[in-house]
Amino acid sequence: MNRQQLFEQIRKKSSYLCVGLDTDLKKIPRHLLAEKDPVFEFNRQIIDATHDFAVAYKPNIAFYEALGPKGWESLQKTLEYIPQDVFTIADAKRGDIGNTSSLYAQAFFSEMNFDSITVAPYMGEDSVKPFLEFAGKWVILLAHTSNTGANDFQLIESASGRKLYEEVLLRSQQWGSPDQLMYVVGATQADKIQGIRALAPDHFFLVPGIGAQGGDLEMTSRHGMNKQCGLLVNSSRAIIYASGDKDFTTRARTEAQQVQQEMHRLLESILGE
Amino acid sequence: MNRQQLFEQIRKKSSYLCVGLDTDLKKIPRHLLAEKDPVFEFNRQIIDATHDFAVAYKPNIAFYEALGPKGWESLQKTLEYIPQDVFTIADAKRGDIGNTSSLYAQAFFSEMNFDSITVAPYMGEDSVKPFLEFAGKWVILLAHTSNTGANDFQLIESASGRKLYEEVLLRSQQWGSPDQLMYVVGATQADKIQGIRALAPDHFFLVPGIGAQGGDLEMTSRHGMNKQCGLLVNSSRAIIYASGDKDFTTRARTEAQQVQQEMHRLLESILGE
Repeated sequence: MNRQQLFEQIRKKSSYLCVGLDTDLKKIPRHLLAEKDPVFEFNRQIIDATHDFAVAYKPNIAFYEALGPKGWESLQKTLEYIPQDVFTIADAKRGDIGNTSSLYAQAFFSEMNFDSITVAPYMGEDSVKPFLEFAGKWVILLAHTSNTGANDFQLIESASGRKLYEEVLLRSQQWGSPDQLMYVVGATQADKIQGIRALAPDHFFLVPGIGAQGGDLEMTSRHGMNKQCGLLVNSSRAIIYASGDKDFTTRARTEAQQVQQEMHRLLESILGE
Repeated sequence: MNRQQLFEQIRKKSSYLCVGLDTDLKKIPRHLLAEKDPVFEFNRQIIDATHDFAVAYKPNIAFYEALGPKGWESLQKTLEYIPQDVFTIADAKRGDIGNTSSLYAQAFFSEMNFDSITVAPYMGEDSVKPFLEFAGKWVILLAHTSNTGANDFQLIESASGRKLYEEVLLRSQQWGSPDQLMYVVGATQADKIQGIRALAPDHFFLVPGIGAQGGDLEMTSRHGMNKQCGLLVNSSRAIIYASGDKDFTTRARTEAQQVQQEMHRLLESILGE
């Protein structure tokens, strides 16, 4: 899916919601454990319930990897089940020397046909480029993450006065265009998001873990949106574990719809869409 | 395996060689492709041929992941086949927010019983700590990698005058002790290795991709060794693909032995072992 097509999906659904498939056998409704592949069965029902309101799904690869070979089978089936018009993100945070990154790219782009993969920037250009060589696929590079540990290194200021995440934003734009490169941006302060948008005006940002309540979504949207929306805002647990019981699909659908309605309001208000 | 046990293995074998299992169906001898599990069969024969001279094996996880569920089965069988007295490294370069890192740790430490895993530091303390919570297991944190892209961010100098990889070395020592934390150190200049050893005097370093020829091994060893050796030097392709034909095991054994003999000489010369 290219950038224009992604924006069209956002307009069509009035939504820039990404649903995180952090599927955990300990958290899914008990009655699903009797299924042959409970992880896939949970994902299938969540996808059925939410795809009207979501423009992207983001399986968190660790949850599948922790289950061994079976987990990879569940992941593959999930990916094949996601409708073609929904953007898919392998949240894998890979990154290694050139030939190794090529193999990771092959695993997620060729074997599994994900649209995109999250990549860690620490090893620099030759660890990221192999992912960018896949036509029509996307790298979502970690810039400013939302966890506490983001402060440890990402905020280190260089002699030039730029923070590490700003260096990542600037240098990586020489490696790939806004048609193949997005950024993970977890910042929740207005001035920081504005600053990041100024450094990368045309790129999509994947924003992790913002609740629909509390103003974070509005603030991020007002300061982070560009003309093509430029945001994919992820919600995982609040949607997929809205209920741990048999009503989990209706509850997930309601949660997703509420986020979508708020996004609809923001798209109208900010972009006039 | 704890630090003392690792050092005892190094003394016993007069070797600090790590053999990288970057097993690639395109590169292994053709006759193995008739086997039911060619990847495992190749690894099995390489392990048989080289374990007298190697203190560690390091499967590069991308090579297995690129093969889908089958690849994970080959990896698991390989790990079970590696003799108990050899240290095992999952070269996975993982790292994510806390609960996700916990799942990666579970995958590699509990499901697969690796001794250690390589981890990327970009997301900071709470992305690394979950790995450190597994008793008797090791994190091998990327500090200074050996690829060209290492220059992009790892060498950025902060206002305090320290480079990013030096900040990683210093801050991460507050997260775990030299009994649970090693570093990837791919530097090949004498003064840089000396500087890194000064910042982390007691930690083991995993040194990627140094050929036995050309003086790099000697230079790294002279400037990087500590009293417990403190080095694991990796060689992948030069050993496992020494031959692409039916003599691959004898050729791999000869290559491994040559490195071991050079390491024996260096251990005697530097540590008097």
